[in-house]
Amino acid sequence: MSESVDTLFINAIVLTMDEKFTYYEHGCLAVRDDSIVAVGEEASLKEQFTANEVVDCQGKVLMPGLINAHTHAAMVLLRGLADDLRLDVWLMGYMMPVEREFVSPEFVRLGTQLACAEMIHSGVTCFADMYYFEEHVARATAEAGMRAVLGQTVLKFPSPDAAYYEESLAAARQFILGWKGHHLIVPSVAPHAPYTCPPEILKACSELAVEFDVPLHIHISETARKWKTCATKTGCPWCRMSKKQRLFEAKVLAAHCVHIDDGEIKTLVNHKAGVAHNPSSKLKLASGFAPVSKMINAGLNVGIGTDGAASNNDLDMFEEIRLAAFIAKVHTNDPTVLPAQTALAMATRLGAKALHIGHLTGTLEVGKRADLILDSSPPWMKQPC
Amino acid sequence: MSESVDTLFINAIVLTMDEKFTYYEHGCLAVRDDSIVAVGEEASLKEQFTANEVVDCQGKVLMPGLINAHTHAAMVLLRGLADDLRLDVWLMGYMMPVEREFVSPEFVRLGTQLACAEMIHSGVTCFADMYYFEEHVARATAEAGMRAVLGQTVLKFPSPDAAYYEESLAAARQFILGWKGHHLIVPSVAPHAPYTCPPEILKACSELAVEFDVPLHIHISETARKWKTCATKTGCPWCRMSKKQRLFEAKVLAAHCVHIDDGEIKTLVNHKAGVAHNPSSKLKLASGFAPVSKMINAGLNVGIGTDGAASNNDLDMFEEIRLAAFIAKVHTNDPTVLPAQTALAMATRLGAKALHIGHLTGTLEVGKRADLILDSSPPWMKQPC
Repeated sequence: MSESVDTLFINAIVLTMDEKFTYYEHGCLAVRDDSIVAVGEEASLKEQFTANEVVDCQGKVLMPGLINAHTHAAMVLLRGLADDLRLDVWLMGYMMPVEREFVSPEFVRLGTQLACAEMIHSGVTCFADMYYFEEHVARATAEAGMRAVLGQTVLKFPSPDAAYYEESLAAARQFILGWKGHHLIVPSVAPHAPYTCPPEILKACSELAVEFDVPLHIHISETARKWKTCATKTGCPWCRMSKKQRLFEAKVLAAHCVHIDDGEIKTLVNHKAGVAHNPSSKLKLASGFAPVSKMINAGLNVGIGTDGAASNNDLDMFEEIRLAAFIAKVHTNDPTVLPAQTALAMATRLGAKALHIGHLTGTLEVGKRADLILDSSPPWMKQPC
Repeated sequence: MSESVDTLFINAIVLTMDEKFTYYEHGCLAVRDDSIVAVGEEASLKEQFTANEVVDCQGKVLMPGLINAHTHAAMVLLRGLADDLRLDVWLMGYMMPVEREFVSPEFVRLGTQLACAEMIHSGVTCFADMYYFEEHVARATAEAGMRAVLGQTVLKFPSPDAAYYEESLAAARQFILGWKGHHLIVPSVAPHAPYTCPPEILKACSELAVEFDVPLHIHISETARKWKTCATKTGCPWCRMSKKQRLFEAKVLAAHCVHIDDGEIKTLVNHKAGVAHNPSSKLKLASGFAPVSKMINAGLNVGIGTDGAASNNDLDMFEEIRLAAFIAKVHTNDPTVLPAQTALAMATRLGAKALHIGHLTGTLEVGKRADLILDSSPPWMKQPC
């Protein structure tokens, strides 16, 4: 007798994006509630299941929704505000002052709604965010039906939602308490960066993340300049300093990792840290080339992020996937490096693992959430029906 | 009394992209036959002209159509055939053998039609092409209503449309004779590259281009490897060799120019050669970074091209404009280099000049052809109506 499910997706080329890159030319996928019950060849699954709803995919590609591994969603409202500038001028001269002046719960709500619309448009079903008033990011994201790891920012200087760091830390605790266990939102804490967070802040954030077993989202080694500043101020590089503050006891999601050496890569691997690579933003701000291929070969889970739209200037993940592959090639002077398959894995399976939610999403495997996209490609990649 | 025109475009933000980057917030543009009769503020132009057709642009951006400065249009049919490979393996191991086997007049006609559709979709009104059976490229392009500088390829070894070079040279002459003076198509001759054309071929092509006063389209300094090969084989670098063969007596459009030194830039400037910079294809094939900013500062007309879709893998010029700006920044380690305005000029005014048709298109100025686009931007750049 056949088993009953809610939805059966038939007549699809199913890319599971699992470890073996399994795919089914005449594929089928069964969903009950919000989870995948079965995936495989249509012929056998059709016999096994009856469904309330059958979706004919018309021979198109059914694959995991893309994971935007690092963004500041609400910053879509600051897009185009300041282009063609140095990172420090861009950040300290434009972004942060403007944010202190204008960023409010309403700004964050509207910005996140627009960002979710843009991300859904480009095939994203899940993202990692770091911003202010994260409570309002969470509400807008859950309303849009998207999955997300959302981090309340903690900073040493006044921010739009806190006059001093203890306040933002308390807000982060409150945020985590409010959203832990939500079916779409994974709350986290987000110390901005080693160069904007003194050791005691890093330590407090790490302890908070460990206490609630939530991810810790941080900018790491964004530019050569920042690496040097950090090393000079503290007398030791970010990696050793971070170890000292026991940062890596938390489930770290490290955005950028541009100027990072072999020893630092090893530290990240040993602590199972995730990395978010942000191709467009690193080009726009001329930050340099992250050693992506080296990090992946070392076993790191490297996802791909758009960063905020102010440093991109959009949230198009297909564009970022393409760029991740292109940049790795020209950086290593080897066009065979980071082939298409690996780039797509970064935007799905590896990205989910980098966010520490690989058990929930990133591949089409039984037991995972049904975070699916169907043919979200640009017009010239569309398949004939 | 008011003057009569065919079409009046009203209620537009008009970007002329002229030398001074003149724009009109409440702009208007008048067209008679295929040419621009007037451009300026709506208030004054509306009094001056009556039109058979009035187009309300709804406050959107009206600007010159983009110029794709280097492509092999029909290669859209080879897209995705061979990715993640070295240029020599890609070219000699895949592209050329497949082309010799499959490229026919029918292939070229269908490929060009698809390419034109894709280019129109991304705001392109004019392109420079280099391929085989160029007669059929010309027919499909004229049918699509696009402007183009089209080059019949000349090569030392057998190609899809010629068993030896004399045959392809004769085909080029025939092609030029057939299309010279056409209102949309500018025929040209296209010696493939210094490393695939011995000195006598370069010389013959240059003489042909000079005889008919048509552009000469050639690949120059595509990779470091090719530069070295060229220098070793001939005993002198491409630039000196090309001068010896009087290549620069023709109106040269040089695609790529990746590995090029100050002296070579000066030679190109002195001979008023145009350059086509191809960001995606140089990344995909890991060829390196062209010194774009340096070339522009030296006074060269540097346009932007998609290259063929097999090395891109699409024909999206907005993507290439963005990449041109991004790559120049990270290459020079300076985010202020190649600002948005310059990148857009490369895709319009400078591109037209690089193709040696700056008198026809590239800006919205009186007397030029009315090659216009209205809000061809991606969804997140759309203005509210």
